[in-house]
Amino acid sequence: MSNITFDLRDNGMIVGLPEGETYFNYYWLRDACQSSIDPQTRERVFDVTQMKSPPRAISAMVRDDVLVIDWRDEAQPSHVPMSLLTEVAANGRAADPAALPRKLWYSDHLPRITRVEQNAVLNSDEGRARLTRALIEDGIAIVTGMDKTTEALPRLVNSIGPVTPSAEGLFFDVRVEIAPTNLAFTAGPLEMHTDLPGEENAPGVQFLHCLENTVEGGLSLFLDGAAVAEALRAEDPEAFALLASHEIPFFYRHDNWDYRAHQRVIETDPDGEVTGVTISQHLQDNMDLPQDLLDVYYPAFVKFIRMMQEDRFTLRFRSQAGNCVVFDNHRIVHGREGYVADSGSRHLRGCYTDRGALRSTYRVLMQKGVADISPPASALA
Amino acid sequence: MSNITFDLRDNGMIVGLPEGETYFNYYWLRDACQSSIDPQTRERVFDVTQMKSPPRAISAMVRDDVLVIDWRDEAQPSHVPMSLLTEVAANGRAADPAALPRKLWYSDHLPRITRVEQNAVLNSDEGRARLTRALIEDGIAIVTGMDKTTEALPRLVNSIGPVTPSAEGLFFDVRVEIAPTNLAFTAGPLEMHTDLPGEENAPGVQFLHCLENTVEGGLSLFLDGAAVAEALRAEDPEAFALLASHEIPFFYRHDNWDYRAHQRVIETDPDGEVTGVTISQHLQDNMDLPQDLLDVYYPAFVKFIRMMQEDRFTLRFRSQAGNCVVFDNHRIVHGREGYVADSGSRHLRGCYTDRGALRSTYRVLMQKGVADISPPASALA
Repeated sequence: MSNITFDLRDNGMIVGLPEGETYFNYYWLRDACQSSIDPQTRERVFDVTQMKSPPRAISAMVRDDVLVIDWRDEAQPSHVPMSLLTEVAANGRAADPAALPRKLWYSDHLPRITRVEQNAVLNSDEGRARLTRALIEDGIAIVTGMDKTTEALPRLVNSIGPVTPSAEGLFFDVRVEIAPTNLAFTAGPLEMHTDLPGEENAPGVQFLHCLENTVEGGLSLFLDGAAVAEALRAEDPEAFALLASHEIPFFYRHDNWDYRAHQRVIETDPDGEVTGVTISQHLQDNMDLPQDLLDVYYPAFVKFIRMMQEDRFTLRFRSQAGNCVVFDNHRIVHGREGYVADSGSRHLRGCYTDRGALRSTYRVLMQKGVADISPPASALA
Repeated sequence: MSNITFDLRDNGMIVGLPEGETYFNYYWLRDACQSSIDPQTRERVFDVTQMKSPPRAISAMVRDDVLVIDWRDEAQPSHVPMSLLTEVAANGRAADPAALPRKLWYSDHLPRITRVEQNAVLNSDEGRARLTRALIEDGIAIVTGMDKTTEALPRLVNSIGPVTPSAEGLFFDVRVEIAPTNLAFTAGPLEMHTDLPGEENAPGVQFLHCLENTVEGGLSLFLDGAAVAEALRAEDPEAFALLASHEIPFFYRHDNWDYRAHQRVIETDPDGEVTGVTISQHLQDNMDLPQDLLDVYYPAFVKFIRMMQEDRFTLRFRSQAGNCVVFDNHRIVHGREGYVADSGSRHLRGCYTDRGALRSTYRVLMQKGVADISPPASALA
């Protein structure tokens, strides 16, 4: 890298990287100096707002793969690793091991769902890496061989992140109740939904641990909401744009709580990529968009929900005692067929952690160099 | 209301309300029918996507302050309270008791901070209503007369909402530590910040319970980030627009975690109103906006943070043992002056709940008809 050129401008410099000339802002370069981060707390200790004047470079050179910059108004030079500059030039940002592309899936996904033994998750970095990677890429995985005790669930969750509470508390039990606070706690069918959209921050990652299931019916239903959203974008871009642009209200209400929040039905990131969906007709409040906008919004909304009922998207399977389905509650839409209440017992125990904790756990494993690729299916017990 | 006129159109009807002619979409009217909500679970049981054709009214009339609509393709009429129509006509949405306007405040707010006795919060709906109302309107309040035990904090928090965990666990202790994971856990000054922006959902409401404070220095600093943001909007609308439009990255990293998230420095709602700010230079990652955008973004960012250091915005006071400062972590920016570590002891214990839980609690109190206005200052012990 001895022949790198520098063109020092007023607010930044053009660096002649081998990959091409790339502009870097001076504030950014000053903030990116290695000395800006305290090695003990790992926090930023340089405060850009304390500079008396905007940073202005007077010279730049590369030494030992580090860009060394002398500043007009500072005694000390800054040191920025060239590897950071090439990363930013290539991707616009530093690498994030958890920024794995989503793999959309359809109704034929069942045989390919990632399955990891409880003991592999609890006792090995590799098991934990396979589970967390599947949750980031596919949004769903099954942990098998769970103990059929109430302690098994918190043990599993805590290997990924802290249990985040909802209005129902830290854990909830899905079974027939006498005075249900929620349609889930009946034997009726439960239409496709994401959980608790009435909370400002709807739960991120959901766990459903099956403790018992001997009833007739009651098949579990799952679909990839991001796959349905992308199908809608392909088939009806205007409907997609409406659902991705406007927020509608949801609630969760009973004697002691009255949660309300607005959510976009299709959630996109600043690049326009689908990051999730929110759907829950039984917790949907009266829409409060302008009434004339509803003339076009409602048909788009109805179309999207009907797409979710198409067979091409839906996985159907019987929850087995000892399994725990884990899924991204902002992406994976779930439901249940009705069942015959007195034909046996059905008891799922559930809770949540958040997606930030999931990605944090995966990053730490990757930084330790843990392998996260599943062994071939034949190697799985 | 006997003379109300109805103009039935293709997708909705124009209702001649006393307040003026107002358009209502048919899907919305069908969804707003009183029978759509199950009285036991309080959930929506009517599914608009199951209709064979879009709803089309064939007649409408008002009976006993209820709009009765006959539909072309349904046997049963719908019933919508006229009070809902007039509310929506006036405000665009149904009333929300927790949708109180924010009251911006400045450096002279100290004598007017709402103070509520711990026992009033724990034992009376009125005390709880005063505290939650202040947190919604002002974003800050002080609970006085707290027991100086570790049990006092969870008792207080649980009267508002569940304790939400962070990477540090459910509770954290702010005092000098040998191997700090965070600048807070030193005796140094702590620049103005909001907590944990590296989490996907940064904590909503923060509690800081002062158990002990006998050190020299270490004054607590608070400001209303929404007030500073509005001042920036008035003084430099372009800088405001930049900070409200783009997300920047934050982190929280140590041996066992690596949280990363993007946040807007100024958070606005769909109406453009400021709902919060996110600022934490010590947890700010290298910015990943396009480098040429940084030429304008960085100066706006520096300007906003410098405004936060102006005396006109900042409250300064000594945290007193037995007090708990409660504040909206998305709106109120806090910090600390440095202190002399061996001049005494300083120990704050903190935790979080979320803003949705706060508003839920306030709504339930209002629906019970609880008074939430503080008595005159002379009546306060």
